[in-house]
Amino acid sequence: MKTTHKAGRVAVRRKSRLSSKARARSAKTGLPPGTLVYVGDAPVQAPSVTVIEYDEDRVSHRELVDVAQALPSETRAGTCWISVNGLTQTHVIEALGDRFGIHPLVLEDIVNTTQRPKIDYYDEYLYIVLRLLSYHEETGEISSEQMSIVLGKDFLLTFREREGEQFAGVIERLTAGKGRIRKGGADYLAYCLMDAIVDDYFGILEKLAEQIEAVEEALVADPGRLTLHGIHTLKTDMIHMRRSVWPIREVLNSLARGDGDLVKSDTIPYLRDVYDHTVHVIDNMESYRDIITGMLDIYLSSMSNRLNEIMKVLTIIATIFIPLTFMTGWYGMNFKGMPELQWPWSYPVFAGFAATAAVVMLILFRIKKWF
Amino acid sequence: MKTTHKAGRVAVRRKSRLSSKARARSAKTGLPPGTLVYVGDAPVQAPSVTVIEYDEDRVSHRELVDVAQALPSETRAGTCWISVNGLTQTHVIEALGDRFGIHPLVLEDIVNTTQRPKIDYYDEYLYIVLRLLSYHEETGEISSEQMSIVLGKDFLLTFREREGEQFAGVIERLTAGKGRIRKGGADYLAYCLMDAIVDDYFGILEKLAEQIEAVEEALVADPGRLTLHGIHTLKTDMIHMRRSVWPIREVLNSLARGDGDLVKSDTIPYLRDVYDHTVHVIDNMESYRDIITGMLDIYLSSMSNRLNEIMKVLTIIATIFIPLTFMTGWYGMNFKGMPELQWPWSYPVFAGFAATAAVVMLILFRIKKWF
Amino acid sequence: MKTTHKAGRVAVRRKSRLSSKARARSAKTGLPPGTLVYVGDAPVQAPSVTVIEYDEDRVSHRELVDVAQALPSETRAGTCWISVNGLTQTHVIEALGDRFGIHPLVLEDIVNTTQRPKIDYYDEYLYIVLRLLSYHEETGEISSEQMSIVLGKDFLLTFREREGEQFAGVIERLTAGKGRIRKGGADYLAYCLMDAIVDDYFGILEKLAEQIEAVEEALVADPGRLTLHGIHTLKTDMIHMRRSVWPIREVLNSLARGDGDLVKSDTIPYLRDVYDHTVHVIDNMESYRDIITGMLDIYLSSMSNRLNEIMKVLTIIATIFIPLTFMTGWYGMNFKGMPELQWPWSYPVFAGFAATAAVVMLILFRIKKWF
Amino acid sequence: MKTTHKAGRVAVRRKSRLSSKARARSAKTGLPPGTLVYVGDAPVQAPSVTVIEYDEDRVSHRELVDVAQALPSETRAGTCWISVNGLTQTHVIEALGDRFGIHPLVLEDIVNTTQRPKIDYYDEYLYIVLRLLSYHEETGEISSEQMSIVLGKDFLLTFREREGEQFAGVIERLTAGKGRIRKGGADYLAYCLMDAIVDDYFGILEKLAEQIEAVEEALVADPGRLTLHGIHTLKTDMIHMRRSVWPIREVLNSLARGDGDLVKSDTIPYLRDVYDHTVHVIDNMESYRDIITGMLDIYLSSMSNRLNEIMKVLTIIATIFIPLTFMTGWYGMNFKGMPELQWPWSYPVFAGFAATAAVVMLILFRIKKWF
Amino acid sequence: MKTTHKAGRVAVRRKSRLSSKARARSAKTGLPPGTLVYVGDAPVQAPSVTVIEYDEDRVSHRELVDVAQALPSETRAGTCWISVNGLTQTHVIEALGDRFGIHPLVLEDIVNTTQRPKIDYYDEYLYIVLRLLSYHEETGEISSEQMSIVLGKDFLLTFREREGEQFAGVIERLTAGKGRIRKGGADYLAYCLMDAIVDDYFGILEKLAEQIEAVEEALVADPGRLTLHGIHTLKTDMIHMRRSVWPIREVLNSLARGDGDLVKSDTIPYLRDVYDHTVHVIDNMESYRDIITGMLDIYLSSMSNRLNEIMKVLTIIATIFIPLTFMTGWYGMNFKGMPELQWPWSYPVFAGFAATAAVVMLILFRIKKWF
Repeated sequence: MKTTHKAGRVAVRRKSRLSSKARARSAKTGLPPGTLVYVGDAPVQAPSVTVIEYDEDRVSHRELVDVAQALPSETRAGTCWISVNGLTQTHVIEALGDRFGIHPLVLEDIVNTTQRPKIDYYDEYLYIVLRLLSYHEETGEISSEQMSIVLGKDFLLTFREREGEQFAGVIERLTAGKGRIRKGGADYLAYCLMDAIVDDYFGILEKLAEQIEAVEEALVADPGRLTLHGIHTLKTDMIHMRRSVWPIREVLNSLARGDGDLVKSDTIPYLRDVYDHTVHVIDNMESYRDIITGMLDIYLSSMSNRLNEIMKVLTIIATIFIPLTFMTGWYGMNFKGMPELQWPWSYPVFAGFAATAAVVMLILFRIKKWF
Repeated sequence: MKTTHKAGRVAVRRKSRLSSKARARSAKTGLPPGTLVYVGDAPVQAPSVTVIEYDEDRVSHRELVDVAQALPSETRAGTCWISVNGLTQTHVIEALGDRFGIHPLVLEDIVNTTQRPKIDYYDEYLYIVLRLLSYHEETGEISSEQMSIVLGKDFLLTFREREGEQFAGVIERLTAGKGRIRKGGADYLAYCLMDAIVDDYFGILEKLAEQIEAVEEALVADPGRLTLHGIHTLKTDMIHMRRSVWPIREVLNSLARGDGDLVKSDTIPYLRDVYDHTVHVIDNMESYRDIITGMLDIYLSSMSNRLNEIMKVLTIIATIFIPLTFMTGWYGMNFKGMPELQWPWSYPVFAGFAATAAVVMLILFRIKKWF
Repeated sequence: MKTTHKAGRVAVRRKSRLSSKARARSAKTGLPPGTLVYVGDAPVQAPSVTVIEYDEDRVSHRELVDVAQALPSETRAGTCWISVNGLTQTHVIEALGDRFGIHPLVLEDIVNTTQRPKIDYYDEYLYIVLRLLSYHEETGEISSEQMSIVLGKDFLLTFREREGEQFAGVIERLTAGKGRIRKGGADYLAYCLMDAIVDDYFGILEKLAEQIEAVEEALVADPGRLTLHGIHTLKTDMIHMRRSVWPIREVLNSLARGDGDLVKSDTIPYLRDVYDHTVHVIDNMESYRDIITGMLDIYLSSMSNRLNEIMKVLTIIATIFIPLTFMTGWYGMNFKGMPELQWPWSYPVFAGFAATAAVVMLILFRIKKWF
Repeated sequence: MKTTHKAGRVAVRRKSRLSSKARARSAKTGLPPGTLVYVGDAPVQAPSVTVIEYDEDRVSHRELVDVAQALPSETRAGTCWISVNGLTQTHVIEALGDRFGIHPLVLEDIVNTTQRPKIDYYDEYLYIVLRLLSYHEETGEISSEQMSIVLGKDFLLTFREREGEQFAGVIERLTAGKGRIRKGGADYLAYCLMDAIVDDYFGILEKLAEQIEAVEEALVADPGRLTLHGIHTLKTDMIHMRRSVWPIREVLNSLARGDGDLVKSDTIPYLRDVYDHTVHVIDNMESYRDIITGMLDIYLSSMSNRLNEIMKVLTIIATIFIPLTFMTGWYGMNFKGMPELQWPWSYPVFAGFAATAAVVMLILFRIKKWF
Repeated sequence: MKTTHKAGRVAVRRKSRLSSKARARSAKTGLPPGTLVYVGDAPVQAPSVTVIEYDEDRVSHRELVDVAQALPSETRAGTCWISVNGLTQTHVIEALGDRFGIHPLVLEDIVNTTQRPKIDYYDEYLYIVLRLLSYHEETGEISSEQMSIVLGKDFLLTFREREGEQFAGVIERLTAGKGRIRKGGADYLAYCLMDAIVDDYFGILEKLAEQIEAVEEALVADPGRLTLHGIHTLKTDMIHMRRSVWPIREVLNSLARGDGDLVKSDTIPYLRDVYDHTVHVIDNMESYRDIITGMLDIYLSSMSNRLNEIMKVLTIIATIFIPLTFMTGWYGMNFKGMPELQWPWSYPVFAGFAATAAVVMLILFRIKKWF
């Protein structure tokens, strides 16, 4: 029961996801390049802006109220991480862009949250787009959110659409000063964030694996309409996840190759490590995809198998009883001259004949291994 | 009801599109290279030629009547954009070709509107072929139109088959002098046009996403013949759209890499941006394609599922009533010596037996989970 | 009616094409390399050899009788095009090979007409193999023929298996001196021939497009056995056409890149143009292939759909009448003690009950949307 | 019987394998990079650490009790192979890491046993991840285990999750001093281990081949539900094996190309040889995959074939007897005015007619080749 | 009849081929690299060793009895070809290896006859592995055999598992001194052998083409179980042939590129020619593969089509007679108060009504185009 229920939950339709996305994106059509308009479906709210300044010895951590004034002065030491959650109020992003000299196209991409993961190299900074995935326990849905990272020589700007807990661990390590993180500079911090994101994907994979198993069990126990939609939904899930994860591979590969000058050489092994993890995630996704495709084939074959079983039952019943019924019909006729009706042994002989016919049929079906 | 109707609209056949295209193209067979013959299906009409000359300070905008005379003289300053809508009168194209020194093969490609998107580098100019897509609300059809761009050092020629609104925004910005557009030169203008074209694709994608959802709903609610043709039409749509968009990726990649000398280095980030958008469009198309393929599998599986349901009903009915009918036939026979017909309890016993048999059958089917 | 007929024509089997080809090729097995044996299925006949010598001012055009003697002397000016139609008499090819210093392997490839399109670079000449396609109106068949081109500094040799009209336009332009052709040298002439060949493919594509549409219409109107074979034949056609056209892309790409020294730099844009056309042909072929594959899926789905329709009819009929028949059988029994048979209202009550049962069943099926 | 039994064994479900893996991996989420936590499902137990030191003349072989103290001193001569079986007690790995100066990320990867095969180049050593496969005779399952190799200039560290016999042959050759092994240094030893691993894959392939044949036989003899699951299980097996073996190809290719300085040039031909074997394994896997895919198609077709057979039987029976039953019903009616019931020849004429009808039907079916 | 028979022959199962191969290979597991053990299934027998020494003027040809002694001395002139047929007695191979200084790994590969085609470059010689295919007329099977070629500066060693006629033509040309063969040196001789091998593949293709046509005919005439297995066997055949031929492409490409110094530059055009032939073989194989895949689709569709036909017959019969039978049952009931039974016109009216119903049904089916 539980199994079918689970598979059913998977089947909950994710209505109008496709078109809402496309609609959001096309709303921008016709505007001049560089115009900042938030494209996405997060609710409108004031962004929370957190500034963490640190070097090997100190950490300062504060929430900003007025972005324009409160930004760190140029002359600070160490590394500065500014994290913006919420992109609906574009003036904040503009202010940050002005302060750090970010190209208008980058600012546009930050607020246009339908980007594909990518990396752009500018002279003074790198611009990285990634996607955060989250799994909603109740609906079985995977939703994705855009995460923008601007990595400069001594600053790191991160932008995301909503609040979230993915980076709690990183902030904790930063505050506690555990490991290399305080010594590592902006590029190592960027690595830590990306590592947290990719590690998060493993959790999503685990959820998907559970769903795949639930559907597989349903497939063995009792393949039905719900199973079919479970498979369909898993397939669509994989398609969406692929779209988010595949391009990250190229992004990390480019970083791990040491493109651009902003990544220090001792951070590169770490980036290579995240790259390996991403490849591992992709590998798993491809396997799951193959398994899901296989499940559909199995489903079709099971259906075909079942139809055969059903038809065998029908055919056995019909083949035994239709001729017998004909025979009873025969002696139910009202012709005058049917002498056999009058003979005393007719009835037992007929009964014997009918029984024999039925038994012979059954033996024939047995030989044909129909049951 | 609405859903099915929508899916039905999708199913409207696009008859003879394939062969009319091929026919158009093969009409040119045998002519020497360089002969200008319009190949396409736009109605014959006088082309409208618009000349926009601008530099950072001024904009002039006029419609040309006599092409040969009225072309801008060589000694103008700033950038000159000549936009030709309508290609049926080839002498206009010839005149422009003479004036700007365009290779005959380029002129031939401009009027032969079945080209694949591509970029050709010549010493003095670039020749770019793109395709404009438009979606016809009433028929659910996507049609495509060839757009040729010739980009020189200080001029930009654009050629398209019909009038259209795609570039209204660009012209407005040009007239109003908003943004970088008046300072940017011919290459930036070319970028603006290409950006408008690619942005337009997102609108088409949105329409397709709506259709996919309509068909998906029909698939869940009541898969039938119309759904099937809806899927088929969507598939064919995707095939046509792919053909138009895929090659543009290579065109923009080449431009964004800075091939040729006509693109200034500060336009390149913008081109990289359009390139990213194109990749995003392609990404979406591939996902839609996978989804559509999955829908066909689901359709087939649903059909198979339904057949099983139907056959179960038939088999249950037949398996219960065919043996019972045989039994009634048995006691409808007119044999003389059938003593059980005379016994007083025969009838109630028989009725009880028949009822029991039916109930046992039903229980068996219940155990087999047939209903 | 017409549609089905067309689709039927498409279905005409192309028997033993596969094995005759393979047989032809394997007949050569075991001979030393360089042995000239004609491999192909053209009828044995005397080859026609045409020599066209031209420069910017003059053209001479003659048919050769005795190849060995009548070949142009070394000291001629301008360009010499020798066209050989018919490869069964290998001594003609040998004589030409001697005269122009062609490698024995090239001569072998010329007469072995099962070659794959390719280009081989030798010091003094290029050897190009292409395939001419022709469509037979009556049978719907596509047949292919090998065309060999040997391009030297001032000569061009072409070899084909049969007479044909594909190059009539080129010869006319050559004779009339229209366009660049007389000024262009041997490489431009080679381009003109290849352009004619690739243009010819568009005609074949048009025929295929017509056939695809005929089958598509049959698929919608009345999918049957003929449709199925129409699809199969189209698929096989596409496979054969692909084999002929795909490798040409690489041949032309190599030429358009300017490999080898025999192609002058001002011919290269023209070659790039033919290359673009070939890519366009391939693009179309791929689309057609996808469409044909889609048609098979649609066919299978339609069949499945139809089966469901048929089974619904059967099940409705059976489900309504089999229980009713059982009931009539019941009251056709000859038991003594069946008091209801004697009651006066039994018959109308029974009739009412039967009618009600039938109506209820119909309503149920209506609710299930079975009709 | 045996065949079906075998195929049945293949079908034993490998429940929860997918999700247990994913769960293991995601347990690490949120920890700072470089934290050593064993990720895998081997039981907790003390690791066995074996140290083999050898040069051309001597071999010493001992089990370590206290890792920290008993590690070989720096000044030893020859090559030192330390083999660790069991990764649950991470302090051992840490001690080794300290002693040989291994990067924390490498140590982390060693204990995180869900890695994908890969090679990482560090200045002083190489880090190689491979996977050992083992086949469980009773359940037909393939399980995989991570094997880490750290190759330094004069040492080789190997880490695996469990005890196993795969390297017994290598240790024997080392002890006996057979062949090149004692002269070859650490890189040759690494080669020997990798050769043993890849040779082991051939054994797995053999088991799979046996299973494929068992299922193929079942497919021919009696395709049923078990066969279907046998195919599904084989497919899933291939997916898992692919994931383990494919990346090894790249690892070995990189080594055989001579990347890094730690591999001596006379070991390279040996590595090229293992590389060839890996390619051979992959080749076989791909073929098996194609065969398995083909088997599913055959299964579906067989089912379809069978359904046709069943339906023919049903249709023949129904088509012969349903009309005859109608006729007997006809003359079973109780209408008053049915004169034919009274005629003396009616009954024999009717019987003749019925027999003729049945025979004609049978002949018709025979002509249609239905039986 | 003949057709089905042929297709039937194709269907003869090639039992245990898969696992016997894998078993052979895995028998070597655990032995140290360089150990010579014959891996293959040729019967144990004394190898025949033929030595052909030749230069432009002379040829000597002898069978060796004692390998070790009778090998040609170092100081011979010209080229020496030693051909070994039969690999079970490994001391012969060892002796040759000693004499010509062959690496132990090469010797190991020579006797391990499950290699994949490959080329290895050593300083003094090349090692090439190819596979000879042979077609067994009676069983329709393709079997493959390993052929090893060691090409040195002035010697050529060839090793194969069995005697065979493939090189009779080459030996004859060598003896007769026809063509370039005596002048060409060891590399040209190697080319001649490879050319003979690849030419042989065309013969195999021809056999396959014949089988494909036989199955195609059976598919049209009477698709049944045998056809299905014919398709399956052809598919498996193609998979095996692909495995043998695909890698040869890379081998020949490498040789034709002039890798290594052992191939003289005037042999290269010949190697390019064999390369082209191999590509042609592969091309054909890919086409056949597509055709075979298409045949399976057609088979499935035909089955589906047939099922529809069968079900139509059943439904027509059932739909006409089941309601009629109900009606006759109705008037066969024994109710007292059935006044219509007594009316004089009842019977003719009833008969007319039944006939009308049947005709109406038939017309309906006709309109629905069911027959």
